[in-house]
Amino acid sequence: MTLRQANAPAGMMRRLGRLFDSQTGVSIIVAMDHGIVGVPGGFHDPRRILEAVLGARPDGVLLNAGLARRCADLLADRTSPALVLGLDHVIHRAQRGVGAGVAHVPQVSVEEAVRLGADCVKTMLLMGDPDRRAMAENLAYLADAAAHCRLWEMPLMVEPYLWGEDVPADPDARAELNADGARIAIEMGADILKLEYGGNPARFREIVAQSPVPVVILGGPKRPNQRETLANVIAAAQAGAVGLTIGRNVWQDEDPVKMTRALRVAMLRQDLDAAVAELA
Amino acid sequence: MTLRQANAPAGMMRRLGRLFDSQTGVSIIVAMDHGIVGVPGGFHDPRRILEAVLGARPDGVLLNAGLARRCADLLADRTSPALVLGLDHVIHRAQRGVGAGVAHVPQVSVEEAVRLGADCVKTMLLMGDPDRRAMAENLAYLADAAAHCRLWEMPLMVEPYLWGEDVPADPDARAELNADGARIAIEMGADILKLEYGGNPARFREIVAQSPVPVVILGGPKRPNQRETLANVIAAAQAGAVGLTIGRNVWQDEDPVKMTRALRVAMLRQDLDAAVAELA
Amino acid sequence: MTLRQANAPAGMMRRLGRLFDSQTGVSIIVAMDHGIVGVPGGFHDPRRILEAVLGARPDGVLLNAGLARRCADLLADRTSPALVLGLDHVIHRAQRGVGAGVAHVPQVSVEEAVRLGADCVKTMLLMGDPDRRAMAENLAYLADAAAHCRLWEMPLMVEPYLWGEDVPADPDARAELNADGARIAIEMGADILKLEYGGNPARFREIVAQSPVPVVILGGPKRPNQRETLANVIAAAQAGAVGLTIGRNVWQDEDPVKMTRALRVAMLRQDLDAAVAELA
Amino acid sequence: MTLRQANAPAGMMRRLGRLFDSQTGVSIIVAMDHGIVGVPGGFHDPRRILEAVLGARPDGVLLNAGLARRCADLLADRTSPALVLGLDHVIHRAQRGVGAGVAHVPQVSVEEAVRLGADCVKTMLLMGDPDRRAMAENLAYLADAAAHCRLWEMPLMVEPYLWGEDVPADPDARAELNADGARIAIEMGADILKLEYGGNPARFREIVAQSPVPVVILGGPKRPNQRETLANVIAAAQAGAVGLTIGRNVWQDEDPVKMTRALRVAMLRQDLDAAVAELA
Amino acid sequence: MTLRQANAPAGMMRRLGRLFDSQTGVSIIVAMDHGIVGVPGGFHDPRRILEAVLGARPDGVLLNAGLARRCADLLADRTSPALVLGLDHVIHRAQRGVGAGVAHVPQVSVEEAVRLGADCVKTMLLMGDPDRRAMAENLAYLADAAAHCRLWEMPLMVEPYLWGEDVPADPDARAELNADGARIAIEMGADILKLEYGGNPARFREIVAQSPVPVVILGGPKRPNQRETLANVIAAAQAGAVGLTIGRNVWQDEDPVKMTRALRVAMLRQDLDAAVAELA
Repeated sequence: MTLRQANAPAGMMRRLGRLFDSQTGVSIIVAMDHGIVGVPGGFHDPRRILEAVLGARPDGVLLNAGLARRCADLLADRTSPALVLGLDHVIHRAQRGVGAGVAHVPQVSVEEAVRLGADCVKTMLLMGDPDRRAMAENLAYLADAAAHCRLWEMPLMVEPYLWGEDVPADPDARAELNADGARIAIEMGADILKLEYGGNPARFREIVAQSPVPVVILGGPKRPNQRETLANVIAAAQAGAVGLTIGRNVWQDEDPVKMTRALRVAMLRQDLDAAVAELA
Repeated sequence: MTLRQANAPAGMMRRLGRLFDSQTGVSIIVAMDHGIVGVPGGFHDPRRILEAVLGARPDGVLLNAGLARRCADLLADRTSPALVLGLDHVIHRAQRGVGAGVAHVPQVSVEEAVRLGADCVKTMLLMGDPDRRAMAENLAYLADAAAHCRLWEMPLMVEPYLWGEDVPADPDARAELNADGARIAIEMGADILKLEYGGNPARFREIVAQSPVPVVILGGPKRPNQRETLANVIAAAQAGAVGLTIGRNVWQDEDPVKMTRALRVAMLRQDLDAAVAELA
Repeated sequence: MTLRQANAPAGMMRRLGRLFDSQTGVSIIVAMDHGIVGVPGGFHDPRRILEAVLGARPDGVLLNAGLARRCADLLADRTSPALVLGLDHVIHRAQRGVGAGVAHVPQVSVEEAVRLGADCVKTMLLMGDPDRRAMAENLAYLADAAAHCRLWEMPLMVEPYLWGEDVPADPDARAELNADGARIAIEMGADILKLEYGGNPARFREIVAQSPVPVVILGGPKRPNQRETLANVIAAAQAGAVGLTIGRNVWQDEDPVKMTRALRVAMLRQDLDAAVAELA
Repeated sequence: MTLRQANAPAGMMRRLGRLFDSQTGVSIIVAMDHGIVGVPGGFHDPRRILEAVLGARPDGVLLNAGLARRCADLLADRTSPALVLGLDHVIHRAQRGVGAGVAHVPQVSVEEAVRLGADCVKTMLLMGDPDRRAMAENLAYLADAAAHCRLWEMPLMVEPYLWGEDVPADPDARAELNADGARIAIEMGADILKLEYGGNPARFREIVAQSPVPVVILGGPKRPNQRETLANVIAAAQAGAVGLTIGRNVWQDEDPVKMTRALRVAMLRQDLDAAVAELA
Repeated sequence: MTLRQANAPAGMMRRLGRLFDSQTGVSIIVAMDHGIVGVPGGFHDPRRILEAVLGARPDGVLLNAGLARRCADLLADRTSPALVLGLDHVIHRAQRGVGAGVAHVPQVSVEEAVRLGADCVKTMLLMGDPDRRAMAENLAYLADAAAHCRLWEMPLMVEPYLWGEDVPADPDARAELNADGARIAIEMGADILKLEYGGNPARFREIVAQSPVPVVILGGPKRPNQRETLANVIAAAQAGAVGLTIGRNVWQDEDPVKMTRALRVAMLRQDLDAAVAELA
């Protein structure tokens, strides 16, 4: 029994067991929830992209409920990846998620996720909004979602989301805000943390070591080259991350299947050359 | 997408997809719910038996909630078989399920099955009880379970259970009662029928052909030899059954793993020699 | 983390941790719930008896809700024994629990036990009643209590109670009925089994070994001498029991404090002379 | 029976009895709920800190639900300190609880605290917010929590929290606002008051003397030296406080175990030299 | 604070405080609930009788809900006696309560008693019915009433009622059955016992001494002379009874006011001559 299952009730144990690979303890989750703010580049035909990604056999996919319902037939197999369902999202200042975040929007209830057969739900923890009442509303929403997750034995992934005008530009200060977000999420009842890996391995290692729940990293915007993405994943894995939730760097890639395989090699073997070799 | 998934809402499609093998459309389910009436022969140590059965990679296991919770760690893997949870059971006239059934007992709610991450629930439809009020209570219970299953998009397997003093001894009359049970279950909202195959291929073929939902057969008591069990499965498969829920003929067997493999071959290839060869 | 806490949600883990001694994993529970059928010998003044028993520092006391409320001040200390609350009881053919059991009576809800700060609840599983509908009602009651226990993370102790005309006189057949009761309780969701130790060490060892939950033994009627009681406890402990729920053999004893100490020594050291020495 | 137990229903009496030491009537509670606003200095690894603090055998620990669930195995012993669960928290103007409070956020329900086996719950009473609607919402929340506490016989600790722009700078005026908060909490149904001791012994003695429920003091920010902290505790104890809920001055200390012991000596013996001697 | 109020929640304390005289701790309750089996002698005009009885200023009156509603105007004064409401009654073999009891009938819910402003409710515990299922139903009813009383903080008076064919004729055996009834009532949650005083002072003294709740005696049939009634009350008071619920011996008396005064003197001063002097 690994850390992720200690103290877990049976239903949570079963759901977590579908999300994390039992051989390696790792989870490669492809995020395809970006359509909630419009049509991102490379994600024009969501069903076709999902089919392509499934060919790479990720451990999980992150979707919004509408698309998950429409594509349920693609996810209806015992070997299908786990379904991580987004419960909420963030509205930004400009269209298509551009600019600082300005509002938090609930999408679906935990009960809807349960009905759909989701294996995990994901929610946002807003860090850095100067409008502290917005943060209070977000925390109240998160507390309620956590209570429902406990009731249904549904794993809760929380993503501390550094947005808004109070987010510091200084990388170290930003890393501290990230650490604050991780701690708040744990206190509120997160079962999995989805964190940005900001490039400071020592600080990130501390955050992971001090977390009683597993940490997966988020992918962030498409990077100029795959090697950089893979190196970043290796650094995070070396610092203790046991998974990643990555989107644009996969489905904006020329070959999502090869890129997913490369990410898995990066995560597991933490060897950049071996990971890059998967792209050939 | 096979017949069984047409018109299915997304959550049901996902759960059914874990129960029926996507390559073959078939489901080999090992029933281990017999402990609810005591300790049956060969089922003394439930956890060890479950571990042995899992080695044969069945498509599903049928358990009661207490044991499923205690053994959740054995079922917490993406490759684990689907979990079919018994919602109710029958009390018989004598200890250990001996004699005619005399009462129907609810065990757990559909919501508890959902919480536990079950992929299907199973309930009993009592046929043949001279006490018609008992039948009415059973039908009211079944209707309520079906409503909750629809709400949660949880597949409902119904087993018409021929018990009591009004069950005819004549095989043909019994086959008609079986057909009646199948139809009542369909009208009430069953998603899967669990039927006895009584040895009349023509009548059983009609029942299956006239059912808009898939049919799996039940195993019944341990037969004197494996060949007979396998021949019976082949006959049912030839008549249209797409799965089986079999217990005592598996875990009372000397080698449950080989027997499970033989059952799968019987179901898929419908070739007795090929199936028997798996036992060697 | 011992077996008893695997897969346990946090609230259950905390309550079980108050019932079983953390150093030894053993629980000596003094049952004082006998007043529900009248005034048993030696239990005339329940409050005074409870005070005497507390002096022996048992791990738990088994009480009915009325007395537990009246004596809450005696149980309101961090070092107080865990409170095991009886949820139901059995009516026998004659006054004061004499003769075969003839009816099962619910007393208080799980919610009331939660409110009172109980650490465990106990319910009866009736085995051997020729009136099978009474058994069905009892099972339905037990299923409902188990569901509420899961909701509140309250440990459920189930006592298979061999009563009524269908209970065999033959010790081996009785041992099998005991084993059946243990299995049914597990399937229904028991967290702890309270079993009679019938004097067949080999069969009892099997029952314990095959149980995924801990087993405590019941004390039964006052035995003619203490040595016999202690020898019986040692035999059960050697067969795997991790606790006992014992009443009349404690508070009908001349010195309940010494007898409780002797029982603990018997359970832990499994040495009859050492246990008897505590009585001096 | 001490004051704290008069008129208490049985469940509340049992829970209070776990929180206040029965020999001394005093409760030393270590607060470790600060992570709800981020990672405070000295509280980086919450599980390790909790383990260290438990070594000092406090009477209680104050935690948020997420961390309490994750660390339930550390709190699952009959000798574990009582669990005081935070039901809500306050959002401040700046990150990490810096600046005036600007919003009140519910975290978990009383029912969740009950389920988790908490012995007491704590909630905030906001005093001094110029936004009187925010105060009205807080009071409505508190009234609801108090009603649920009465239903479940769960002790309610209320902390009048002097925040916002209407809090006077003048110490005497601040002491009056503190007294107002204490009275409002009592009128709303508090079972325990958590108050700041502002350095005015005469006024504080009046507040305590006029309170029908026990008063514990809060610790506040880390003080420059331990002697000052201990002197403050002694003054409060001399004025009638029967406990303290102290965090940063314990786990930001070099040796939390020694500091906890010193605090207990300060509280009980009200002798500064004796308390300081514990730090050696 | 007397014994009867220890551990009592506030609502119960207030209601009990209206039932028992605060100066003396005693309660003289006049029972006028006999009309539920017809028109008993001397109770032809219930309203007039009630008015007469009120003139004697009893501490309480025992009524059924119908009459209590009709006569509420007579009971709507701060100096009115406490209202004890009968929740149920017993049907006897013959009209007007003649012959052995044969059935137990619920009348009104605890909620109705609350609505009516009752200060206490009374229910029957049937002892001695050979039909043990009837006893089981009665106990289930009593358990439910006790749960509702705890919820509403309503004092519950339980009257063990020795009826039916299993009630022994031997006075000592009858006293033991009375003791059994008292214990069962306590275990079920009675706040006050209403017991018959059978003439054995030593045994009755034990029952009272071993009861954690106050005991009042019932009056029974009209005795041939008042002196005998008063002597009986004095004996019970000397054995520890703190009140009486007496009907026919009051309102079948020539002068209910004088008789009530005599009963109070008997109860308080335990001096037969002084009591008899009140009748002059």
